[in-house]
Amino acid sequence: MTETLKAAKCQKRGLFITFEGGEGAGKSTLLAALQQEFSAKGQTVLALREPGGTALGEELRVILKHQATAEPLCAQAELLLMYASRVQLIETKIKPALAQGQIVLCDRHDLSSFAYQGGGRGLPFAAIQAVRTAVIGDFRPDLTLLIDVPVEVGMQRVAARGVRDRFELEQRDFFVRVRSAYLQAAAQLPYVKVLDGTQCPEQVKQAALAAIAACRC
Amino acid sequence: MTETLKAAKCQKRGLFITFEGGEGAGKSTLLAALQQEFSAKGQTVLALREPGGTALGEELRVILKHQATAEPLCAQAELLLMYASRVQLIETKIKPALAQGQIVLCDRHDLSSFAYQGGGRGLPFAAIQAVRTAVIGDFRPDLTLLIDVPVEVGMQRVAARGVRDRFELEQRDFFVRVRSAYLQAAAQLPYVKVLDGTQCPEQVKQAALAAIAACRC
Repeated sequence: MTETLKAAKCQKRGLFITFEGGEGAGKSTLLAALQQEFSAKGQTVLALREPGGTALGEELRVILKHQATAEPLCAQAELLLMYASRVQLIETKIKPALAQGQIVLCDRHDLSSFAYQGGGRGLPFAAIQAVRTAVIGDFRPDLTLLIDVPVEVGMQRVAARGVRDRFELEQRDFFVRVRSAYLQAAAQLPYVKVLDGTQCPEQVKQAALAAIAACRC
Repeated sequence: MTETLKAAKCQKRGLFITFEGGEGAGKSTLLAALQQEFSAKGQTVLALREPGGTALGEELRVILKHQATAEPLCAQAELLLMYASRVQLIETKIKPALAQGQIVLCDRHDLSSFAYQGGGRGLPFAAIQAVRTAVIGDFRPDLTLLIDVPVEVGMQRVAARGVRDRFELEQRDFFVRVRSAYLQAAAQLPYVKVLDGTQCPEQVKQAALAAIAACRC
């Protein structure tokens, strides 16, 4: 074995976990709980969100979440902005952190595009896959935690928060399509674990920890 | 023939001309001259630029042209932002104008991505083509006028302007690759006409008018 090959095998490799689900599913709550859990054990955790997490990503987040309705964003542009934010985050933050052996937790990632721009906006899944492959290649999370709640439950939770963003203002049918696309993707991708988001936060956290333990074996 | 088919055949269809070339080739000068020429003949002309031309596009233009070097934009994100601006422009401005029979002149379009993000940044042409097909499909200009000048000539013209943007600050090798990719694409695409940008503006304009006349036959 050459020195280069040995070095490659010895390279530290962290853990990349993404959190997915419809509005009000409980992604942020779970992410914060797991961040605390890992940090308490002395592990280095990098918590990120999409769109966002980089200077570019945060600028795009403003455009994507709050753009004035005077010029509606076409679905294709929305998809490309999501992937622009994503690939910048992967190249400048996620890959370097993983190479240092860190745990990276990301609030939304790739599956959101299939659910929202695919299921929600109706873009062909093949087109989304083509964009993904073109710019990200085969890089993917080690584990995706998909928190599933019935659409009505999620909408009630969001309504209780007050102000809504451009996505949260969509109608019920949109979220039904989003949930359906999420569950369809989960059934096909072995690294996606579905969690029951109607359970209490502690139960969701325990189910997540069990999924993470299984993923690390 | 059904009424629908008749209506489709009678539909007005404008003319979509794009202007391409390296920095300092003379695109803006030619576009302005042709805009004046068409307007003087009473034709409705819509002059646009990329990235830009829409509220989204102008926001992305600022990011693409002047982004702080503290966080360099990765090449894939740059590509996606260019196509986000482009597809928004096509859907909200170019297609509606063409449907009304207008002449649309656009300073940079699709070929710029093959030249700059492909040739310049080194992204695979197949990846660019995949993104293009996924979001734009088979929509393309009726005519692309590629103004070709030797790299040194273009760089001297840009230097004479004063302040340079993020692309204009690139080194000579970058522009050599851009020019090469442009000429390679022109050799393969029948709707691209190469104009000699070392000629005087009036000669370039006459050559452009001849190409437009040939395209309309």
